[in-house]
Amino acid sequence: MKRRNGQETDITQLKIDWDKLSKEADGLLQELFPICRSITGNGTRKTLEKLREIAQFDIKEIPSNTVCYDWAVPEEWNIVDAFIKDSKGNKIVDFSESNLHIVNYSVPIDKIIPFCELEEHLHYLPELPNSIPYRTSYYHRDWGFCITYEQYQQLDKSGEYHVVIDSTHTEGVLTYGETRIEGETDREYLISTYCCHPSLANDNLSGQILWALLIRELKSIKTRHSYRFVIVPESIGAIAYLCHNEESMKRIDGGFVLTTVAGPGGFGYKNTYLGNHLIDRVVQRTFDELNVSYIAYPFDIRGSDEKHYSAPYFRIPVGTISKDKYFEYDYYHTSLDNLDFVKSKNLIETLRLYLLAIEKLEINVIYENLNPYCGLMLRKRNLYPKIGGQIVQKVADTKTSHLEREYKISDNDSICGSELDMIGWLMFCSDGHTSVLDISEKTKHPMRSLFETARKLEAHGLLKELNYSGSEAI
Amino acid sequence: MKRRNGQETDITQLKIDWDKLSKEADGLLQELFPICRSITGNGTRKTLEKLREIAQFDIKEIPSNTVCYDWAVPEEWNIVDAFIKDSKGNKIVDFSESNLHIVNYSVPIDKIIPFCELEEHLHYLPELPNSIPYRTSYYHRDWGFCITYEQYQQLDKSGEYHVVIDSTHTEGVLTYGETRIEGETDREYLISTYCCHPSLANDNLSGQILWALLIRELKSIKTRHSYRFVIVPESIGAIAYLCHNEESMKRIDGGFVLTTVAGPGGFGYKNTYLGNHLIDRVVQRTFDELNVSYIAYPFDIRGSDEKHYSAPYFRIPVGTISKDKYFEYDYYHTSLDNLDFVKSKNLIETLRLYLLAIEKLEINVIYENLNPYCGLMLRKRNLYPKIGGQIVQKVADTKTSHLEREYKISDNDSICGSELDMIGWLMFCSDGHTSVLDISEKTKHPMRSLFETARKLEAHGLLKELNYSGSEAI
Amino acid sequence: MKRRNGQETDITQLKIDWDKLSKEADGLLQELFPICRSITGNGTRKTLEKLREIAQFDIKEIPSNTVCYDWAVPEEWNIVDAFIKDSKGNKIVDFSESNLHIVNYSVPIDKIIPFCELEEHLHYLPELPNSIPYRTSYYHRDWGFCITYEQYQQLDKSGEYHVVIDSTHTEGVLTYGETRIEGETDREYLISTYCCHPSLANDNLSGQILWALLIRELKSIKTRHSYRFVIVPESIGAIAYLCHNEESMKRIDGGFVLTTVAGPGGFGYKNTYLGNHLIDRVVQRTFDELNVSYIAYPFDIRGSDEKHYSAPYFRIPVGTISKDKYFEYDYYHTSLDNLDFVKSKNLIETLRLYLLAIEKLEINVIYENLNPYCGLMLRKRNLYPKIGGQIVQKVADTKTSHLEREYKISDNDSICGSELDMIGWLMFCSDGHTSVLDISEKTKHPMRSLFETARKLEAHGLLKELNYSGSEAI
Repeated sequence: MKRRNGQETDITQLKIDWDKLSKEADGLLQELFPICRSITGNGTRKTLEKLREIAQFDIKEIPSNTVCYDWAVPEEWNIVDAFIKDSKGNKIVDFSESNLHIVNYSVPIDKIIPFCELEEHLHYLPELPNSIPYRTSYYHRDWGFCITYEQYQQLDKSGEYHVVIDSTHTEGVLTYGETRIEGETDREYLISTYCCHPSLANDNLSGQILWALLIRELKSIKTRHSYRFVIVPESIGAIAYLCHNEESMKRIDGGFVLTTVAGPGGFGYKNTYLGNHLIDRVVQRTFDELNVSYIAYPFDIRGSDEKHYSAPYFRIPVGTISKDKYFEYDYYHTSLDNLDFVKSKNLIETLRLYLLAIEKLEINVIYENLNPYCGLMLRKRNLYPKIGGQIVQKVADTKTSHLEREYKISDNDSICGSELDMIGWLMFCSDGHTSVLDISEKTKHPMRSLFETARKLEAHGLLKELNYSGSEAI
Repeated sequence: MKRRNGQETDITQLKIDWDKLSKEADGLLQELFPICRSITGNGTRKTLEKLREIAQFDIKEIPSNTVCYDWAVPEEWNIVDAFIKDSKGNKIVDFSESNLHIVNYSVPIDKIIPFCELEEHLHYLPELPNSIPYRTSYYHRDWGFCITYEQYQQLDKSGEYHVVIDSTHTEGVLTYGETRIEGETDREYLISTYCCHPSLANDNLSGQILWALLIRELKSIKTRHSYRFVIVPESIGAIAYLCHNEESMKRIDGGFVLTTVAGPGGFGYKNTYLGNHLIDRVVQRTFDELNVSYIAYPFDIRGSDEKHYSAPYFRIPVGTISKDKYFEYDYYHTSLDNLDFVKSKNLIETLRLYLLAIEKLEINVIYENLNPYCGLMLRKRNLYPKIGGQIVQKVADTKTSHLEREYKISDNDSICGSELDMIGWLMFCSDGHTSVLDISEKTKHPMRSLFETARKLEAHGLLKELNYSGSEAI
Repeated sequence: MKRRNGQETDITQLKIDWDKLSKEADGLLQELFPICRSITGNGTRKTLEKLREIAQFDIKEIPSNTVCYDWAVPEEWNIVDAFIKDSKGNKIVDFSESNLHIVNYSVPIDKIIPFCELEEHLHYLPELPNSIPYRTSYYHRDWGFCITYEQYQQLDKSGEYHVVIDSTHTEGVLTYGETRIEGETDREYLISTYCCHPSLANDNLSGQILWALLIRELKSIKTRHSYRFVIVPESIGAIAYLCHNEESMKRIDGGFVLTTVAGPGGFGYKNTYLGNHLIDRVVQRTFDELNVSYIAYPFDIRGSDEKHYSAPYFRIPVGTISKDKYFEYDYYHTSLDNLDFVKSKNLIETLRLYLLAIEKLEINVIYENLNPYCGLMLRKRNLYPKIGGQIVQKVADTKTSHLEREYKISDNDSICGSELDMIGWLMFCSDGHTSVLDISEKTKHPMRSLFETARKLEAHGLLKELNYSGSEAI
């Protein structure tokens, strides 16, 4: 088995100072929020460079107009300034106050026009009158301003307006980031997020920060499987990445799209297109073991890059754990999705869930029982109560956890009831086809406890880990 | 692809004047009801000839005593007259008033007998005292009269009676009808009904008329699949047909037995013996899309000819859409199953359901996605909203249909939300194994809308219809 | 087909005098209860010899220290006497009063010790103060006394006690019993029980007696399948048996572990590890047909010898029908599990259920329909009502059974409605893959009625029994 230099800690031994991490995430939110990102250009580049300060990954480029399947990389867009002045010369809409004021990818303009012409280029939300909507026009050359409905109401419908957008569309590049953590097995999982929205905090600055922190944590340990981390502009970036990594991406076993992970609302999980894939099962088991409720969203083609990753040619099953999922919260795609809305504490909670789900991928081992003929003689290994005949009591003490209660045996024994039960089930089930996750789902014992017990049995020469790549554990 | 002369309209384009059709069905009910049908003989022949005036099919014959598997065709039965006279010479039961008065297939008799002897040959229904029951004795030589319970009560229990049945059993033929509509694929569906009951309207004159009208409609269009239409006397006719068409019938993919389609009660559907066959699924989807409730009957060996068609050697899955299913309505097999009970309007409603179910068989195409790598670049095809970033709104307007509401996007776009959704799902699912029905069941989009959208995508070179016979869509 | 001498009666024809059997079981309970059994030694030998008076089986031996997989046969244990005397010389605990007073397999001792030393070797149950617990120490050399909590409370905590255990551990044997009933097919079922508990009535003297009675009944008839009966000390006996009969045991098709069959509580069924195996299905069908409710216990590794029989190498699916299942009743493993607790009537009720379940294994034949083309011409075989057209009435008379009611037809016919229905389903379903159990589960007709009807159809040349070993009926 390959080991990376000096990394002998596995994921079950990862130690994290959650408070420190939360403060770090908060600093990143503050620093990265104001940047005007788009699917190409300086804002996105700057964001990636900043994220690279906390996690190692490569920044790569694809030239404008490169054809990627049905799509082509658009010209690079950059913007310096933009405003609307009324007839008295007052700046009534100003890009420097919010980069959401400009329809992303707007063409340049510098013109005095009557209200009726301006109005065709205005976007606002009467139902959320103090918010600026987020709008884009990547593939349709147009320009526009997004304003609050309150701003809209104050406009002089018979006036003239000076509209200025100082933007450029040039032959340039699409910028993205990637890194790969090499594991011991042939399995590889994708962890993707998107970096293209300007000042929007939950969707998806939160996902970008979680992505970078996850890289750093997983790089600090040895992993059983490989993990491919990708950060791309949504849609075109994922498509370009698939197109440039076709063979590798066809071999991916599953993964996650990280997005909207720091809102104040409840947890959600959008299932993979299969709905019962290993990815779905480890997430469900994570929520179940923590006894945390969540909204289960079925797979939907409306969403983020899972539509591309799971397309017929690739069929990568990708799921998404969210905290206030895109589409579902009122402030989605508005200026109210800001630093008042998200909390770094939420981001870190979601990070913890992802780490626990990934841990389950890591420890989902299949064992072979080396004494398959009968139940074990546990007594000779000091793994059985000294005195037989006792019933393993179901204790009604509600203070201990459910599993502890159910398996309580006398205190002076060297083994507790739940361990005894786990030993029995691990030996009974380990027929070379049944994984630790299967056993956990069946018995409700936490996966990590089962895995640690299995390790003990392995040390006793009673179980043998099977070559993972040889036996699929889906 | 083969096309029948001049028939370029497919089933989705079928235009029907339902009112006109209903009047026509009414005329047929009036005209055909009085005929004294049986499993052989003049009444059945006359009925088939009349039906042939509205639909093209062949009338065929099988000689009496022909052995068909476990059965043999019985001698042909015809009847001229029958009555019972009391001792004063009054006709108290008269065949000319109702052909149900005679046990079908009665042997001839002309004899004066006491009441006690007559009584053994009388059938009546105390629980429905003004109705004449329908009884038969095809395979057991006997004679009998069916009378109302009121008639029975007025009989002089000490009197003598002159019973006359002027009937014949002769070497003749069993008469049946059939036609085949040739489609483009190797698939063939059976549409069978039975013609042997005398003056009984719902069971099964209604089924015979629906059968003939269905032939006429399907012959007016080009069909993708082939349809074999069979009209036979119940049981012996179906068995004789199977025996004489063994190889063809083994290749049938599924079908329907038409019966009891015009009663005043609710719709029902008797499932095929498989219960989840394509036939069952298209019927369920038809009811679901129309939001019409119905009683789902499981398959039962008690019933009509599905028992024979689905026997182990043939195993043709056949279902039945009914309106007041046989066995279930009070007037079943009595003289009250008459023209007051059935309505041509009901018959036509059931015809419409059958046409919609058959449409689903016709349009259940499997497509291959020709751009399987990622989501489509819809914008360049003018299939995407001009301005991005908007959420596809869930509108609460209850006046529009459920699907319209859920997918509403801004009015000035060239595409509506539900079409956008259908495009996405069609492209995502079309992996060469998934049919339009599969996608409809999953997404709840109506099959016809999905099919029409798929046709558009085919025209754009984005989907390709797979050879149907190559990929089973069950 | 092989027939044992003179045994032409099959299980459906077994006649049992249940009252007589119940009295016999009562006598056996009285006689065997007082014996001090253990996993080896004289008590177990005596019990087996006594059981052999009512059923033919072989008694076999395995020498002490024989290695059996992960285990080894322990030395043989025998005990003559044991007591505790207080300082005044009064016997305050006396083995002759209850053999539960001694921790089973205690090493010998003859010593005067202070209370504090004695206390470490005392077992009692504060929650059941008048009961003596049952405790063992087979694989950990120790000694101990089990007493009531009331006895414990009366002990002088500052006194001295003379403890005597006159026991021996010697090179000897493990004793077990077995017999095999040879059937006609290649199928073989295991029926195992354990004989090692001293004076405990429900767990498991009741199981031993049921085991012996079942042998006697099954040996009185010819059986279609083979049955292997095994009576062993729990765990070590089952393991030793597996080890010495490895090849035969790998071929076993399923079976039962008999235990706790005579308690006053409700019936229970502990499923096989598969949960939906033929064994589980025949038991469920048995309870369903009798309309007897029961507690369904899922498979659990905690339990009896099913843990060994179902281990990965053997994977024999074994179930257990219980009346007051082990672990579940308050008196489990205490002196209150005695002859006041169990009743021979209960034991015989459970025996009847086992016989009915085994009957279902025996009659679960797969037939081939020799007229697979269509429904049968029943009339010519006098298997159909004389007059056609009648509906098979659903009669509301609640006095007749459910199935009779539903299928009632006129009284003067040679066939009843339920038989007509069974004929139809048997012919329809018998495609060479579908067994009588499958048809019974689908139609709810009792298996025995279906089997008897199938036999009739076989006599008419309409069905043919398939070679059982050729077509698996799981």
